[in-house]
Amino acid sequence: MNPPDAPAGGTPWPLGPGAAVLTFDVRGTRTKAALFDTDGTMLGLSRTMIPAPTAARDATEVLMTHMEDLTTQFARDFPLVAPSAAGLIAPGIVDDQEGIAILSASLRWANVPYKKLAEHRLHLPSSFSNVARAVGEAEFMLGAGRAHSNAMVIKLGTQIAASLFIDGRSHDAGGFAGGLGHTIVNPQGDRCGCGSRGCLQTVASTEALLTRYTDLTGVTLTTWQDVLALSREGDAAADRVWNDALDALALAISHVAAVLAPEAVVISGGLANAGDDFFLPLRRRLDTLLSFHRRPLLVPAMFGSHAGLVGAALRARAVVPVASVAIVA
Amino acid sequence: MNPPDAPAGGTPWPLGPGAAVLTFDVRGTRTKAALFDTDGTMLGLSRTMIPAPTAARDATEVLMTHMEDLTTQFARDFPLVAPSAAGLIAPGIVDDQEGIAILSASLRWANVPYKKLAEHRLHLPSSFSNVARAVGEAEFMLGAGRAHSNAMVIKLGTQIAASLFIDGRSHDAGGFAGGLGHTIVNPQGDRCGCGSRGCLQTVASTEALLTRYTDLTGVTLTTWQDVLALSREGDAAADRVWNDALDALALAISHVAAVLAPEAVVISGGLANAGDDFFLPLRRRLDTLLSFHRRPLLVPAMFGSHAGLVGAALRARAVVPVASVAIVA
Repeated sequence: MNPPDAPAGGTPWPLGPGAAVLTFDVRGTRTKAALFDTDGTMLGLSRTMIPAPTAARDATEVLMTHMEDLTTQFARDFPLVAPSAAGLIAPGIVDDQEGIAILSASLRWANVPYKKLAEHRLHLPSSFSNVARAVGEAEFMLGAGRAHSNAMVIKLGTQIAASLFIDGRSHDAGGFAGGLGHTIVNPQGDRCGCGSRGCLQTVASTEALLTRYTDLTGVTLTTWQDVLALSREGDAAADRVWNDALDALALAISHVAAVLAPEAVVISGGLANAGDDFFLPLRRRLDTLLSFHRRPLLVPAMFGSHAGLVGAALRARAVVPVASVAIVA
Repeated sequence: MNPPDAPAGGTPWPLGPGAAVLTFDVRGTRTKAALFDTDGTMLGLSRTMIPAPTAARDATEVLMTHMEDLTTQFARDFPLVAPSAAGLIAPGIVDDQEGIAILSASLRWANVPYKKLAEHRLHLPSSFSNVARAVGEAEFMLGAGRAHSNAMVIKLGTQIAASLFIDGRSHDAGGFAGGLGHTIVNPQGDRCGCGSRGCLQTVASTEALLTRYTDLTGVTLTTWQDVLALSREGDAAADRVWNDALDALALAISHVAAVLAPEAVVISGGLANAGDDFFLPLRRRLDTLLSFHRRPLLVPAMFGSHAGLVGAALRARAVVPVASVAIVA
């Protein structure tokens, strides 16, 4: 297995001491897994592709078998680190409390009691939560949001989702909260995969940048960074696509600022990886949109692409039985 | 003083037994006041105009003198009902915790420690809160929202504001939460009084209906109900103004549904007084805008125009010293 990347800024993983836990970040056809030891150090990050689910092999069975294999592999690679719990995260609508995947288009799930299935197959107390919420909890509790008690953490990427923290606690509304990617920024906009029209997702996801550039020019680009590069070179279509994305994001954040008034908005992944090219114009736009409102700080996430695993580890540690915690302490 | 109107539906005031409290609902140039007895019955509702503040007589002094006079008058009219606390509410940004009016354009306040001033002048423990939050608390705790633990209560009128209830608790973000009237529904829309452009307020407040109709036709109407009546008669401008208001409200509610996912949205005052003419098309619009999101119930408020006073009474009872409560019980 590959050694884990260091977190941004070269700071050590801040998970701190606690139970050793296994974590799985499950996506459509790939899974990321890591073992955290009792110091909170991330061991043996593994990225694996798994077969796409078919009618014959459903997603749940494919994934469970894969997770069993990974658990065996971690036990072989790190025989001295015995995990006390497993933390699973996946995209879609997840009821964290009950550990049920309510709906996931990409994983073809509907009402799968994932937490229970994992406990049965891995023989470990397990947690099951949403990817965006895991990223959010890592950033809110240990990362860029840790100084605040009211914050929103936005996860940009091919999908856009957010997690909300209100008076220090995560607000998930049974899994339905945080659907920032599917707030409508333009009722006359493009049709979204979700069925609505003009969702933020259709303008500001990394996928939208590529699609919209191709729609405007007929030219196919490989990555969203190509759009930014072309925009810097003065390409009018790229400039429009890039600026539309920033306009839409600023608008969606302004709605949350007016209604929820978070102290900070932490932004992770996707376009936020452009750094100042992203944050400076976004802050300017938000400032123009707001008036008397409380202006949230717009800050980059502290963790890189492994934030989800850190959040999954936090959740996993929370389900470790008290007796095991006592042994570790 | 006038007898209070019965609440909607002829149901008795549901405040229930508790301490007797005085309540004041303070607006620009008029104040509504009422005394609640130990049964929770509203006594002697008073609506009074007070002089507009000038440079010589500032708003705080004008209001304090007026509230002292009203307190004396209530004591004379109801000598057997001695209030144990006073509950004050006003529009604008209010820090409920500290009882400070942070900002109110209509009342020309900035950082006035209203709770303390009232306690000094009225010789009663006092609470000071925001009007929309008081309406919201009345509806959430005793009215149309009482079956839910996650809800938004919208107060429509010449201004639009909301109050949020998350996991059973009011979320006010130090007074900055709930600014639904100043969420932007159209970035290219009309300039709002707040300085931003295209706020919900500029399309869906009762004032906006009149202004927009006049802008389109040159004709001045007296009340927003005239716009609805003309729309029913097939007047194209009235129809457009009415439908724009519903479109904008549905859009603003859809944003909250996507991000916060409340179980219910209670709507009070203003256009909501149109009943089915308002709620049926609003529900249809919201249904079209949403996809996989949790669809909130859209329900009319239970209390009429005195909801604010009921909310103020709830807050006032909460500041009654424990000894007084014991005597009442």
